[in-house]
Amino acid sequence: MAPRHPDAETLSPTVIIGAGLIGASIGCALTEAGVDVRLRDRYRSHAVVAAGVGAGSVEATMASKVRLVIVAVPPAVVAPTVARALKHYRNAVVADVASVKQPILADLEAMGTDLRRYVGSHPMAGSEFSGPLTARPHLFADRTWVIAEGTGSPEAVRTVERLVGICGARPVSLGPADHDRAVAEISHVPQIMSSLTAARLATVPPEDLRLVGQGVRDVTRIAGSDPGLWRQIITGNRAEISTQLRAIRDDLDRVIDGLDDIGTIGDLIARGQRGVAALPGKHGRPAGKALERVVVEIPDAPGALARLFVDIVGQGVNVEDLSIEHGMDREVGYLSIAVEAEQAQDLRKAMDEKGWTLRD
Amino acid sequence: MAPRHPDAETLSPTVIIGAGLIGASIGCALTEAGVDVRLRDRYRSHAVVAAGVGAGSVEATMASKVRLVIVAVPPAVVAPTVARALKHYRNAVVADVASVKQPILADLEAMGTDLRRYVGSHPMAGSEFSGPLTARPHLFADRTWVIAEGTGSPEAVRTVERLVGICGARPVSLGPADHDRAVAEISHVPQIMSSLTAARLATVPPEDLRLVGQGVRDVTRIAGSDPGLWRQIITGNRAEISTQLRAIRDDLDRVIDGLDDIGTIGDLIARGQRGVAALPGKHGRPAGKALERVVVEIPDAPGALARLFVDIVGQGVNVEDLSIEHGMDREVGYLSIAVEAEQAQDLRKAMDEKGWTLRD
Repeated sequence: MAPRHPDAETLSPTVIIGAGLIGASIGCALTEAGVDVRLRDRYRSHAVVAAGVGAGSVEATMASKVRLVIVAVPPAVVAPTVARALKHYRNAVVADVASVKQPILADLEAMGTDLRRYVGSHPMAGSEFSGPLTARPHLFADRTWVIAEGTGSPEAVRTVERLVGICGARPVSLGPADHDRAVAEISHVPQIMSSLTAARLATVPPEDLRLVGQGVRDVTRIAGSDPGLWRQIITGNRAEISTQLRAIRDDLDRVIDGLDDIGTIGDLIARGQRGVAALPGKHGRPAGKALERVVVEIPDAPGALARLFVDIVGQGVNVEDLSIEHGMDREVGYLSIAVEAEQAQDLRKAMDEKGWTLRD
Repeated sequence: MAPRHPDAETLSPTVIIGAGLIGASIGCALTEAGVDVRLRDRYRSHAVVAAGVGAGSVEATMASKVRLVIVAVPPAVVAPTVARALKHYRNAVVADVASVKQPILADLEAMGTDLRRYVGSHPMAGSEFSGPLTARPHLFADRTWVIAEGTGSPEAVRTVERLVGICGARPVSLGPADHDRAVAEISHVPQIMSSLTAARLATVPPEDLRLVGQGVRDVTRIAGSDPGLWRQIITGNRAEISTQLRAIRDDLDRVIDGLDDIGTIGDLIARGQRGVAALPGKHGRPAGKALERVVVEIPDAPGALARLFVDIVGQGVNVEDLSIEHGMDREVGYLSIAVEAEQAQDLRKAMDEKGWTLRD
């Protein structure tokens, strides 16, 4: 059992309202650190299941003793739940973890609630899964956790910073408006673009899908996400998303009108390239050296993948990225390794000499 | 040296016009199989470089003896190059490998060329790289290679089928119109959507990029592709692409107008989910069992990744997919393994017991 975290005492007990993926995962992280966590959910069975995976306990506790309340309910009901929690748990800091901040803050201010004990926050974590059974204590490890600037007293904010620290995440302070704009840009709008692209595939003649390659799989991967949650997130952040989607629509109009113009289309692709180059690279640094992919066939034999991997890593190259591609027909897969361009040739030569079959 | 392929003699000599990634890679595949390949390029240096990486020879050959000509030039100049080749190499089958088929066929028909020795084709392969130095003999292994139905005599088509076989690809027969529609659906439109999404990121305040997660990286990965080539591909297939982009624009209009309507947005995400489910799964079968991701921290120590991999594969689970994610701040990476949902729990338990740190 892990040693108790130094901050565990000051957060005990913590009440988590909403025992889904996020709430239960926070519960697991806190419980692992030695915090006394009590779980609440409108469906008692969810809280019981979450307790079963180590997220805390469903036992009652004295409201006045509660130090921290985490509201992890769907976005549409966050504000009233926060308001009730502030009233009921009179000595607790109340934090939410919803992926929009402005609408919630606006609703709370409209209710006239005293918000000194309220801190808006948002852990940038999650997965395509949902529900307490998929909860993991390390879900937030090394992720960004936004703390909404301008919410909560300094003491309340420090409490939430301790929460973030125990979960292993990195706190980032952002104003609510800046947060909502940022998540629209880097999460919500890309989700919509992915879903728009994927939605077309459901209407494509099945025989056309034989031509599918890795590119379209990448573009549509996140379109597999849960509709129930995403429709709340998107409608919750509609103001920011609307602005950005309209800008994309203007861009799309220009592309449709300029499909016969090499300059217009070349400009679009070049702008996209610059956008990709702007993404942070490995370890938070801007994308640096050119990478090259070395693709090796994985023989369909037990242990082949392990031997292949041992040979690759034995070369001492810095593996920047790694993925598996599947051939369409034969029972064979390919391991695709991205390395710095200058190391690629030596790696190919070495793998070839060891008897592996390279593809590209 | 690999044994000579049984079909090598009937294709010798082959002339490849255009010594870029595709042309040179075909050259390497054929040369490896024992075919006598001669390279041509408007820039002799490209042909010389391609010869240097094993794609063939730059020596002249008697035109009347040439069996097969592969035209691997940019889409905009394919038709005139094919027409000239049909004239100059009087006994050869002439095949192109461009990613659009109808416009090229239309141009050739308009020229009044005798097309019995012309076969339209398109290997569904490539990479984000270009130029002869990136040529690989196994670029086409296990990939789909479309042969355009209705082009070429049966004998000419058989010659191209031999070419496809030597390159290790799977021939698929598709009418030119069906091909152009299909590649628009599964390649060109997703490329445009990825570029539209990525283009926005270049204008995003840098501090907002701190929130970037894996999702947006997946959506924008192919937006890193070469503008020079893609602008030709897109303008070349503009008729099909226009139809599909207009349908997406209608969808986008409905989303913008319905951003406050849970039903509209939920419907979009659900349709996207169905599209993803329609994609062929591993080994060409429709996507089957639910997958779950197991994410393990890779300690920053020499050989750690290899040991981690040996432990994973030692569990005997079927690794469906694999990728590396990078934490934003700490010098640490995460190996993300997708396995069948029912195997995930045991894998996590085993890795935990072996002392690895799981994230989600």
